[in-house]
Amino acid sequence: MPSTITFERDLPAIKWLAAPSSNDWLSQAINNPLEVLIDHAHCERKAAGAALQLMFRYLCEPGLAEALTPLVKEELDHFEKVLALIKMKGRYLEPLPAPPYGTLLSKEITKVEPQRMLDSFLVAGLIEARSHERMQLLATNSPDMELRNLYAELMVSEARHFSLYWVLANERFEQKKVECRINELALIEASILSKLHHQPRMHS
Amino acid sequence: MPSTITFERDLPAIKWLAAPSSNDWLSQAINNPLEVLIDHAHCERKAAGAALQLMFRYLCEPGLAEALTPLVKEELDHFEKVLALIKMKGRYLEPLPAPPYGTLLSKEITKVEPQRMLDSFLVAGLIEARSHERMQLLATNSPDMELRNLYAELMVSEARHFSLYWVLANERFEQKKVECRINELALIEASILSKLHHQPRMHS
Repeated sequence: MPSTITFERDLPAIKWLAAPSSNDWLSQAINNPLEVLIDHAHCERKAAGAALQLMFRYLCEPGLAEALTPLVKEELDHFEKVLALIKMKGRYLEPLPAPPYGTLLSKEITKVEPQRMLDSFLVAGLIEARSHERMQLLATNSPDMELRNLYAELMVSEARHFSLYWVLANERFEQKKVECRINELALIEASILSKLHHQPRMHS
Repeated sequence: MPSTITFERDLPAIKWLAAPSSNDWLSQAINNPLEVLIDHAHCERKAAGAALQLMFRYLCEPGLAEALTPLVKEELDHFEKVLALIKMKGRYLEPLPAPPYGTLLSKEITKVEPQRMLDSFLVAGLIEARSHERMQLLATNSPDMELRNLYAELMVSEARHFSLYWVLANERFEQKKVECRINELALIEASILSKLHHQPRMHS
């Protein structure tokens, strides 16, 4: 599929993303639907693991465990749904090398508290925001109805998860600081994705 | 409370445990109900983390992710329930130094596969079995009705979780090997608990 094809982009993406996903990514993803689906199962389990890790790190932070526990459970619900479709399509949870996206973003998390907490929320939120935007593109443009339906169902939660991390950040840090930092991180996030990774992934 | 007091022990403990919990432990736990409750919240979140870790380690093992994902979600449901009661009682998730139990048991897990997988299932199962046995004691003997009800509700799942690990082991390993190994590990488990840890914990 040539990258000059017109894709539908009929829903607003989360406003904090600094750049929309490219048609090159969308072509790559649509041409490799099962690889992206399996990668997405891995994304859901990793998102569950990362949220659980955040909860473990900040155990004494009031309200955090209560907010993150339902999120972990929902990520696992999604993991189960994605895995069920993978199996229906005759595949399983094959291990796939991760694209550089997650590692490069994590490197941007400051090592020192309390900035580390803010960065952790915003990086997790940006990943959810990007997943939302990309699922919306797949839900609208994928030729496979089962995939369209799955991504359409999941994308709503991804936006909600972004909002959750956004609220967690704004409850604990000054609004200006949060907005300034998400703008910085969003630029880095978009720049990581500006060069298409050669292996088809949800965040290639 | 002297350790010579008679406690009710009216439900059968899981048969693989090599020794019942002592009256000394039960006295200690009943005399420090909130510390044990908070420790139990930590146990639930750690059980969720450990099951997720097992799933991550053996991603390609057919049927494992499907079995462990609901277990992780249930551990988190319990975590939420325990945390709600802790908050009702005016406390929060204070960090508590862990007793030596978990670390000592984990050291018994063989480093080499496939024995490592078998040991991991059986150690996780034994911890669930012990939690079941101790919750049953607390559900029967605790003077606090709220605690009795909570532990009575949770203990059923702990027994189910033991069974889940038991089935996972028996589906993948020879029955004789599984029985022989659980007997070995159960002796070690009971010996770790034979000396009461000075800090009141679910596994002191």
